[in-house]
Amino acid sequence: MSAKLHTAATRQLARRLGGDIVKTDAKSREAASFDSGRMAFLPEAVIKPRRHEQVGEVLRLANRFGVPVTPRGRGTTLMGSATPVAGGWVLDLMRLNRIRIDDEAGMAHVGAGAVVAKIQDRAAGKGWFYPPDPSSRAYCTIGGNIACNAGGMHGGKYGVTRDFVIALRGYLPSGNYVEWGTATRKYAAGFNLRDLWIGGEGMLGVVTSAVLRLIPQPETRWTLLTSFENEVSAFAAARALFGQRLQPAICEFLDRYSVSCAETAMRTTIFPGQPGRPVILLEFAGSEAELRATKRRVLAWAREHAVGHRAARTRAEAESLWAVRRKCSGAMFTMGDAKLNEDVTVPLSTYGKFARFLEKLRRDSQLAIPTFGHLGDGNVHVNIMYHKADPDECRRAEAAVQTLMEKVVALGGAISGEHGIGLAKTPFLRLQHSEAEIGAMQAVKRALDPAGILNPGKMFEVFETWKQPKVDVKFPWDHR
Amino acid sequence: MSAKLHTAATRQLARRLGGDIVKTDAKSREAASFDSGRMAFLPEAVIKPRRHEQVGEVLRLANRFGVPVTPRGRGTTLMGSATPVAGGWVLDLMRLNRIRIDDEAGMAHVGAGAVVAKIQDRAAGKGWFYPPDPSSRAYCTIGGNIACNAGGMHGGKYGVTRDFVIALRGYLPSGNYVEWGTATRKYAAGFNLRDLWIGGEGMLGVVTSAVLRLIPQPETRWTLLTSFENEVSAFAAARALFGQRLQPAICEFLDRYSVSCAETAMRTTIFPGQPGRPVILLEFAGSEAELRATKRRVLAWAREHAVGHRAARTRAEAESLWAVRRKCSGAMFTMGDAKLNEDVTVPLSTYGKFARFLEKLRRDSQLAIPTFGHLGDGNVHVNIMYHKADPDECRRAEAAVQTLMEKVVALGGAISGEHGIGLAKTPFLRLQHSEAEIGAMQAVKRALDPAGILNPGKMFEVFETWKQPKVDVKFPWDHR
Repeated sequence: MSAKLHTAATRQLARRLGGDIVKTDAKSREAASFDSGRMAFLPEAVIKPRRHEQVGEVLRLANRFGVPVTPRGRGTTLMGSATPVAGGWVLDLMRLNRIRIDDEAGMAHVGAGAVVAKIQDRAAGKGWFYPPDPSSRAYCTIGGNIACNAGGMHGGKYGVTRDFVIALRGYLPSGNYVEWGTATRKYAAGFNLRDLWIGGEGMLGVVTSAVLRLIPQPETRWTLLTSFENEVSAFAAARALFGQRLQPAICEFLDRYSVSCAETAMRTTIFPGQPGRPVILLEFAGSEAELRATKRRVLAWAREHAVGHRAARTRAEAESLWAVRRKCSGAMFTMGDAKLNEDVTVPLSTYGKFARFLEKLRRDSQLAIPTFGHLGDGNVHVNIMYHKADPDECRRAEAAVQTLMEKVVALGGAISGEHGIGLAKTPFLRLQHSEAEIGAMQAVKRALDPAGILNPGKMFEVFETWKQPKVDVKFPWDHR
Repeated sequence: MSAKLHTAATRQLARRLGGDIVKTDAKSREAASFDSGRMAFLPEAVIKPRRHEQVGEVLRLANRFGVPVTPRGRGTTLMGSATPVAGGWVLDLMRLNRIRIDDEAGMAHVGAGAVVAKIQDRAAGKGWFYPPDPSSRAYCTIGGNIACNAGGMHGGKYGVTRDFVIALRGYLPSGNYVEWGTATRKYAAGFNLRDLWIGGEGMLGVVTSAVLRLIPQPETRWTLLTSFENEVSAFAAARALFGQRLQPAICEFLDRYSVSCAETAMRTTIFPGQPGRPVILLEFAGSEAELRATKRRVLAWAREHAVGHRAARTRAEAESLWAVRRKCSGAMFTMGDAKLNEDVTVPLSTYGKFARFLEKLRRDSQLAIPTFGHLGDGNVHVNIMYHKADPDECRRAEAAVQTLMEKVVALGGAISGEHGIGLAKTPFLRLQHSEAEIGAMQAVKRALDPAGILNPGKMFEVFETWKQPKVDVKFPWDHR
């Protein structure tokens, strides 16, 4: 019955928007049936609007016929947030990709489908900087970044996507056009639905364009690689650094397992004579004058806390240090053919406890759990490696994730810092939130989307990812 | 009928919480009957919780008996947002005023009733800086700042309250306790109801405590007073400044009328030989080294765009320049005994048009309209002065506000940058927002507060402020 209605709706939409916008061929539908979470559900059609208003048309029709609509950009999310789990229509916003830099005001006016790295490059060309930088930044879209409130390496000093969004334009689930905020930094005129949409995972409305705040491009950067006795002392050193009110633009931690991966991949020892030690890779940004004073303080910190440190004297040398960070992730697949990348956060004061917990988790689970992450904002990526074909490893991996999530919540942290919930983290949402909190979120969802058409099946319904087969596909943004 | 129920509810609450918490004496009720908007409506009781949980008790009972609850802090809002227009209970949160500075993480854990200046002072004592600084900062509470997303002079470079709130704790209108966010910079676990509460004007929940982000206190500051031929050239100069990616920590504009007020009050001429010229007062903040380079660029800008400039060589000299800014507002009351302080915003690219519009507004309305504001974030305070006893002036003032609001919206700006809507701006909300936008806001309100008990009568219902008599009272935070 509803299947027939949906087919009728799809036909009507195709008549209105044409075959260039509404794709019903098998290839288009298959390509849109999964995201980087690799769980596939075939949609009825894929809709690729060329104009913003077409998004309104799609939603109005979807509402009338009760068709599920799953908005998506490039689909780099690991959480299954862009997977059309309920079928219906995938609303692909990649074509709404305009970028205009307002050089004077330091703002970027961008379509939802604009690729983050392109926004950054266009801004940089005019001396401006857009800091949020998820590792998929060369592929992912700003619309997706807004949907999951994406972060990246610069979160500690500069903030995340939410901190750079000034205004949003788009459509309510009803298909009505709305504007949240103006191209001004201050705004206090009505409820803040702009920020409710940020991190709303495409469930509360569809963003078609955004105004982003930019900051002046720092004059220069200085990179320092520091090496530590063990993970506990690395986490303690990070606490000491922040306690001195030093604010690195980037503060990337790699545990000894991540470092070993990078060393294997690069066929080198990062600190000769001390292979496989955990490291913290720091970048400080600012004017030349500012950095001179900072360097002195940071080197004093390194001498006190690190077993080794190497500063980059040139940009090329800095690049070779950053290669360590980039190489570690791909090489992890020597430890297992499947990875659960869990982007948890913990407060700074619990770093020591958390480092000791990770040691215990490794021992108890007997799994490789290389860990790296952004210590400036408490966001640690815990990578639980296992072999898909080994049921016992799968069980241990599943148990390890549960233990990890319980721990981060107990420490006052969060089950996700920058990936969102999607399908993959639904089993843990109730660890983070009380029934009252979830009830309030669901009430807001029902208020804005009474027909429940927008990205259904995400966030609140527990999805059993472990029972779901994974599509075997390689993405250009995979770290492998 | 409902009056009887409310009285029964008040008695029940008084029995539970005691007379120290639940005040029903005439003096307490009168004191809570108005805020700085000076429109008085007598509440049934004033409730002053000493413990957070008591807020939950109050709301649960209010829900059961349908008693309106108006949360408030110090009541410095000019918008009537804390006025108990529907009677019922005023929930005074001033006693929940704890402040704890997490020195290491750079965070402040504060109760809703903590005074903003005290948070700033406590943070500064440990080398940290909390930038949002409404002019009432020595009196107003962080709870009120969160309710209206307060800004201040530092908005352009650093942002507003929303940009510094990391987590909120409090109660839903149902009386259920909720936590939005953790004490970590990154957070992507569930819908963002934290930011929905910010700027929610106490209509969507009651904040009892917050975690605020702090930034390192800048090493030093440099103040420069610049003077311009006229307002249009001052606005143009500001555009040129930002276009060079110079980021003043403060960029305060005063038009010639505001300057004349200050000069009269201070009995001095700011720039000898050029009295009454518009000025821009700039503060740059950073390390000594950083400021040396900045000063050169800023002085070059001043020589090109300003008719005069004076840099402060000492902190005392800087203080004397800031006195100009502080004195202007009080002296405006020589131009009228009533002031409408409209905190509109306009985008940077429209500064020239807006300056010319203000000249026309003055001519057409034949009213004194001294204007000052924060040019770093497009937030201009347009002060429409009139005499309360003169019906013709009142009419012209009312018309001028309407014209102003229509203009800022037409320019792509906002009817409020930092004050919020409350009662006073309800006539203009529909200029800013479409029916679809307002419908979405009201749907969210109904979803979270189905009984409509929390701060009723605000934001959406048009309130005729002009027909409302004003209480004649002097507040310590008045600029007079």
